[in-house]
Amino acid sequence: MKLYSYFRSSAAYRVRIALNLKNLPYDYAPVHLLRDGGEQLKPEYRKLNPDAILPTCIDGDHVMQQSLAIIEYLEETHPEPPLLPKAPADRAYVRSAALQIACEIHPLNNLRVLKYLKHTLGVDDAAKDAWYRHWVECGFATLEEHLASDSRTGKLCFGDTPTLADACLVPQVFNAQRFKIDLAPFPTIQRINDYASQMDAFARAAPGVQPDAE
Amino acid sequence: MKLYSYFRSSAAYRVRIALNLKNLPYDYAPVHLLRDGGEQLKPEYRKLNPDAILPTCIDGDHVMQQSLAIIEYLEETHPEPPLLPKAPADRAYVRSAALQIACEIHPLNNLRVLKYLKHTLGVDDAAKDAWYRHWVECGFATLEEHLASDSRTGKLCFGDTPTLADACLVPQVFNAQRFKIDLAPFPTIQRINDYASQMDAFARAAPGVQPDAE
Repeated sequence: MKLYSYFRSSAAYRVRIALNLKNLPYDYAPVHLLRDGGEQLKPEYRKLNPDAILPTCIDGDHVMQQSLAIIEYLEETHPEPPLLPKAPADRAYVRSAALQIACEIHPLNNLRVLKYLKHTLGVDDAAKDAWYRHWVECGFATLEEHLASDSRTGKLCFGDTPTLADACLVPQVFNAQRFKIDLAPFPTIQRINDYASQMDAFARAAPGVQPDAE
Repeated sequence: MKLYSYFRSSAAYRVRIALNLKNLPYDYAPVHLLRDGGEQLKPEYRKLNPDAILPTCIDGDHVMQQSLAIIEYLEETHPEPPLLPKAPADRAYVRSAALQIACEIHPLNNLRVLKYLKHTLGVDDAAKDAWYRHWVECGFATLEEHLASDSRTGKLCFGDTPTLADACLVPQVFNAQRFKIDLAPFPTIQRINDYASQMDAFARAAPGVQPDAE
């Protein structure tokens, strides 16, 4: 398997966690999101990923985009250890936590959106930072409410074994910390992040230890 | 089953399509996103959905959020007719098309984001419309490229039978048309939308025929 990744891309980070949790070796193909105006915009990468975003995962003849679709594929082709619980309602719960991050927080704060705010709308750096902070804090507030109030929450988002939800939570917390967002109002998120981060599969997926880390 | 919906919510529209495709009857619980400052913000709704967004689906004791998680739940609990193909790589393909809409287009253009642009960033209506248009056109351009170049595309996103991808595409096209976005540059999207829209399950899910339509 081959993963097109950038050490700081949180969508790629999710897939790195999933690959590690499933003990699947993979080739790391770095795509630098900033160098030369962004290597993801080059024609050879856009052939694999017309959206010009990360990650792309290649398995044999299959070229796949979108982190959550790739992780579901890994789950279906390599079921052990599972990243989703068994009961459909529990699976919906884990998927909804993952989607809450993937749809309600992350899309608002990725590079191309921040660029549009700055270059097209002429938003200054302070307002751009406030935007970033706002969507993380809004999203984390409701995620915290979910996790803190649901009896299914354990050491991790669903009990004590890692799921798709943890694979989304940890990269989003990494982003928040990079942006110096105070996590004190989100004790459950912080606790889950701290517990997951010291697990081998998560530690090996961390941005700082990737081949292209700076 | 009970679905909290608003006739124009495109995330709720996705679930309505899926419920209809699976011939599942449901109670329609309207949540007016604009009336009284937004009924989704009321405490009784936020108990079901801390994000204060639509849809929420209740099946027995299970309260579920996030349209794609709900549709996967429907797929697992009511497998026929399937909304995902059989082969894992094909499932990844359909899911990635759905996620491309759900993660790359829709989150940037929902009500709360447009409100933030207007009220917090002080963006004028013309720039707000340009923002909306920009993300739909960017997202549709790459979705068009995917669909037009992949041999799996048929009358619909994957062959000739409806999938999760079509359940996301049709509501997004509805939004685009409401915003008078020219679909001429996206002939495959337009063709799929036209074909799907006349199918009974899609027609019955359309905003204009919902109990709370205005």
